[in-house]
Amino acid sequence: MGVPRNIYLKMKTLDEARRIVARHFRQRGTRTEEVPVPEAVGRVLAAPVFARLSSPNFHSAAMDGFAVLAANTFGVNEGHPRELGLGTEAYPVNTGHVLPPGTDAVIMIEHVQELDGGRIRIEAPAYPWQHVRRMGEDIVATELLFPRNHVLTAYGVGALLAGGVLAVQVRTRPHVLIVPTGSELVDWRTTALDQMRPGQVVESNAYMLGALVEAAGGRYTRHPLLPDDQGRIQAALKAGVGAYDAVMTVGGSSAGSEDFARAVVAELGEILIHGVAMMPGKPLLVGDVAGTPVFGMPGYPVSAVMAFEQIVRPFLYHLLEQPDREPARVTVETSRKIPSKLGLEEFLRVQLSQVGDRVVAAPLPRGAGSITTLTRADGIVRIPAHVEGIKDGAQVEAELLRPATSLARSLMMVGSHDNTLDILSDQLRAGDSGVQLVSSHVGSMGGLMAIRRGVCHLAGTHLLDTGDGSYNVSYVRRHLAGQDVRLVHLVMRDQGLIVRRGNPLSISGIADLTRPEVRFVNRQSGSGTRILLDYRLQTMGLEATAIQGYRDEEFTHMAVAVAVLSGRADAGLGIRAAARALELDFIPVVTEQYDVVIPGRFFDAEPIQWLLATIRSPEFQRRVEALGGYHTEHCGELIPL
Amino acid sequence: MGVPRNIYLKMKTLDEARRIVARHFRQRGTRTEEVPVPEAVGRVLAAPVFARLSSPNFHSAAMDGFAVLAANTFGVNEGHPRELGLGTEAYPVNTGHVLPPGTDAVIMIEHVQELDGGRIRIEAPAYPWQHVRRMGEDIVATELLFPRNHVLTAYGVGALLAGGVLAVQVRTRPHVLIVPTGSELVDWRTTALDQMRPGQVVESNAYMLGALVEAAGGRYTRHPLLPDDQGRIQAALKAGVGAYDAVMTVGGSSAGSEDFARAVVAELGEILIHGVAMMPGKPLLVGDVAGTPVFGMPGYPVSAVMAFEQIVRPFLYHLLEQPDREPARVTVETSRKIPSKLGLEEFLRVQLSQVGDRVVAAPLPRGAGSITTLTRADGIVRIPAHVEGIKDGAQVEAELLRPATSLARSLMMVGSHDNTLDILSDQLRAGDSGVQLVSSHVGSMGGLMAIRRGVCHLAGTHLLDTGDGSYNVSYVRRHLAGQDVRLVHLVMRDQGLIVRRGNPLSISGIADLTRPEVRFVNRQSGSGTRILLDYRLQTMGLEATAIQGYRDEEFTHMAVAVAVLSGRADAGLGIRAAARALELDFIPVVTEQYDVVIPGRFFDAEPIQWLLATIRSPEFQRRVEALGGYHTEHCGELIPL
Repeated sequence: MGVPRNIYLKMKTLDEARRIVARHFRQRGTRTEEVPVPEAVGRVLAAPVFARLSSPNFHSAAMDGFAVLAANTFGVNEGHPRELGLGTEAYPVNTGHVLPPGTDAVIMIEHVQELDGGRIRIEAPAYPWQHVRRMGEDIVATELLFPRNHVLTAYGVGALLAGGVLAVQVRTRPHVLIVPTGSELVDWRTTALDQMRPGQVVESNAYMLGALVEAAGGRYTRHPLLPDDQGRIQAALKAGVGAYDAVMTVGGSSAGSEDFARAVVAELGEILIHGVAMMPGKPLLVGDVAGTPVFGMPGYPVSAVMAFEQIVRPFLYHLLEQPDREPARVTVETSRKIPSKLGLEEFLRVQLSQVGDRVVAAPLPRGAGSITTLTRADGIVRIPAHVEGIKDGAQVEAELLRPATSLARSLMMVGSHDNTLDILSDQLRAGDSGVQLVSSHVGSMGGLMAIRRGVCHLAGTHLLDTGDGSYNVSYVRRHLAGQDVRLVHLVMRDQGLIVRRGNPLSISGIADLTRPEVRFVNRQSGSGTRILLDYRLQTMGLEATAIQGYRDEEFTHMAVAVAVLSGRADAGLGIRAAARALELDFIPVVTEQYDVVIPGRFFDAEPIQWLLATIRSPEFQRRVEALGGYHTEHCGELIPL
Repeated sequence: MGVPRNIYLKMKTLDEARRIVARHFRQRGTRTEEVPVPEAVGRVLAAPVFARLSSPNFHSAAMDGFAVLAANTFGVNEGHPRELGLGTEAYPVNTGHVLPPGTDAVIMIEHVQELDGGRIRIEAPAYPWQHVRRMGEDIVATELLFPRNHVLTAYGVGALLAGGVLAVQVRTRPHVLIVPTGSELVDWRTTALDQMRPGQVVESNAYMLGALVEAAGGRYTRHPLLPDDQGRIQAALKAGVGAYDAVMTVGGSSAGSEDFARAVVAELGEILIHGVAMMPGKPLLVGDVAGTPVFGMPGYPVSAVMAFEQIVRPFLYHLLEQPDREPARVTVETSRKIPSKLGLEEFLRVQLSQVGDRVVAAPLPRGAGSITTLTRADGIVRIPAHVEGIKDGAQVEAELLRPATSLARSLMMVGSHDNTLDILSDQLRAGDSGVQLVSSHVGSMGGLMAIRRGVCHLAGTHLLDTGDGSYNVSYVRRHLAGQDVRLVHLVMRDQGLIVRRGNPLSISGIADLTRPEVRFVNRQSGSGTRILLDYRLQTMGLEATAIQGYRDEEFTHMAVAVAVLSGRADAGLGIRAAARALELDFIPVVTEQYDVVIPGRFFDAEPIQWLLATIRSPEFQRRVEALGGYHTEHCGELIPL
């Protein structure tokens, strides 16, 4: 307790950190090994490879026909045909056959008349080397097939075998020991989920980092889990260095009372870096223990991944003598203003979609603990350390995590959250259309604004017109006036109060929310659910300030439900499906209409048509009904505007 | 003999062929299997995956410090600090710890003063959920983690384990039986290279196609080699269908007398396609034998690869419910005119390089037998069936075979061929600069013209000024007048006559080339070597027409040498290194100067500076000297222009 926190060595910029690692370990390389060619795909050649055989290794027929000496056919034409004796002047050959001695051309079989008596007749001359694959035409023995450090492809297997090269020297895969540390961790192979105690966590970072090591051309060994115990971590490290090309500890790299990575490395060797000015990834530690690099990886998954990709992967590539991976980049427009912290280079995860003629980037949450911000990301926007943020609508560069070609098949959906979107997202992927749904939950009004600004393909909305009780139509008319949009009905859904199992506080309606012992969890302003709540409060003459937790906001129905499940709140307003998913009780308040707004200019495009066909499919509707609290009678119908 | 050749079923266009395969086998899929999450990277999810646990699964501290109930801290400020009792009002927590019951916020340790008597003092209030990772902040149990048909990444491993998913259902890898056929083939594992008889070939297509199957997410079994024997091929096929997801025979798919694929499929099942209007790849056969697709792959390697990538790979992707791979594309400018055959869609292999502000495409040879046209290719230009070719300098689209980012590190060298370029290419790849040399051999004059047109970074040249005996300078002044270029000396090299081992015709100089029994092999017009020959003939008063083979042209020294080695010619003019590589005899004629022309605008760019540093390195010069016939005294020096 009471350990001062800012004990990082003078924090390094990312560039400094990369240079320190590169310089300090520049002498390290990896060994080489001989591998049979058919098993060498993806491996790095340790030496230049020269052909041992020519290909073809002999003059061979390139067509089925007859091999002849071209000089014997000169002067032949239709008026002056010539007969050639089989076995003396002409020899039958098939494609690939060796050209018989004394011949230098092949006449195609369809240009020859076969006569009795072992003779053929030709009516056109052959030129020398006609229809012949000459020796060495593709590969000449002794020529360079591949330079060192070439990464062998499937095609390369063909070229090597054709050139008589049967085995190649390749660089051994760098072998990394990964040591997961943390007393809270359990191993999925030995602890059943239902035996986990509160506070325990399934260890996943070591596997994830291991998969990244493999993707970078290395291999890994995962050390058994270690608790936060300096002695045991130190012993593991001591045993590992020397036997591996690198050691990564995971967790405990920061500066808290249970963060032992620093102490262990200081004890056994030299600390080169502690703290890198990047976010996520700041608490990275790099040390040298007996010449072996030791990377103390942060425990938050996104921090660990970023530190790996920016520092560890370049090191592995260096061992393999490969240039660091250069990501493809694309210019994107951010869908909203993004503040950023001065002094740290931020790696902002974004979802990307080609919307009309621009690529729109929707930022994902920033938290380093949120692994789904990586799995949902299509790209990374780097915000330099000296920049305070990105302005709304600014053009910036994004590094792509997926092929650029997939962006055109991504449908950007912005707006209200609904559980049917999970089903829709999955049904879209049935078959091989490649269409995928990228959704950003900013509430119904946020969705309409995104449509107005042209930064999405569709918006989900359930906005109640408190004047006439209708949904969405009047909002679209007002906020998207003059824009060509279509409104498609998705579902009717039950909204109500999500309360704890068994409803221990006996909540029966909105009025109960003002009871002093009831802790409420709210939805954010601009969401249809918030508008519904405020409308109800108003008509009932209730004060928002009377509700405990009114200002405690969440962005999705599921987040509200989990707040209730966790005991953080006693009630929240949300859809029945969310209550049902977490086996909570539900008190219906209203059945409301959830629709989708689609700009006219995208309506006929194939991805949207695929989406509509999916929405209208019985399979989708069946699965939505199974969630509970949904009504799909008019699912997929166009609503007149 | 005499089999009519045009017995392809009505040839299909590529689109038709794809549709036929897709429609005929649309019901086929692959099975599914359960795989532990850490082993599932790269696999295709067979079903949507929903979270079983929330992440975090409890409210946890996001900082090291003290957990408190925020409401207990309201009203606190510097003037009104408050003391909290440890274990009753405040609880020490580290990052990741469960928040104790009755607390909802964490105060960072550095904002707390620890007092004696188990108390702490705070001077600022905490707001609810400050520095707390709330339950479900990242993942809410029951939410969709990944839709079906998602390909799992390393990041995904982290998300699945965090969401309590330990194993997933994935699609089994499609299993393909590959049956290599051809009496000329030998297996590299059983036949030593030096025991190969003339006409024998190391089988490589099955391994190459197998590697492509694996890259497409499948796996393969390679059947032992089969000779051109209809009965044995038929038996193998019969045994294979049913047990595999697809069968590929390799070779014998055309219409010659030893092409049995068609007969075998017709005997056992139904032929769907024979002949596709693509080049290479035309002789593809597709059949249905007992419901299993049988692909009769052409025997030429490039044909086999193209037929695989256009027809078989989409089928494998269909089995895995993945969209066909969409290659990245880039607009390129061709470096010369390219004719193409009407009626066939041609897949032209090109080398690509970013030269200034455009990407230049240098076409590789067209032959379907030349596997190196694939290994050397950076991209594919598709020439539609209805187009007769591409005009010089036209803008066309290329499908990329490498990351687009690598094009900027490729140096395009056009011009004269020299064996030191192999060494240069390899030395450039030492270390991890990522710089690579792409070279196109069009002769010295062709190189100067490419510089003039701005379509290359450097040109190799050895042009003799017959007026003063100098090299290159006067040509550069004349042909690149007004252009800012640098001339860098590479090597002096011995040119002379390459003759058969032991020099059986006792050739001693250029004059002997006119002897009637001597068959010569020439270099192409515009090459420095051709200019040298013509100059010598002229000064000696000899007639070119007196030389047998004067019109038989090759493009490289090695091609000339192999022509002599193979007995196709008795002599050719070329460099000593080429003779020495193939252990041929060499009669010196002249020592000439080989230089490199580099436009000034590229001279200071990092890849060119890297190239120059490489040329000037002792290691490069040592290896060049070892080739024989080279002199490197002034290697890398700038020549005044």
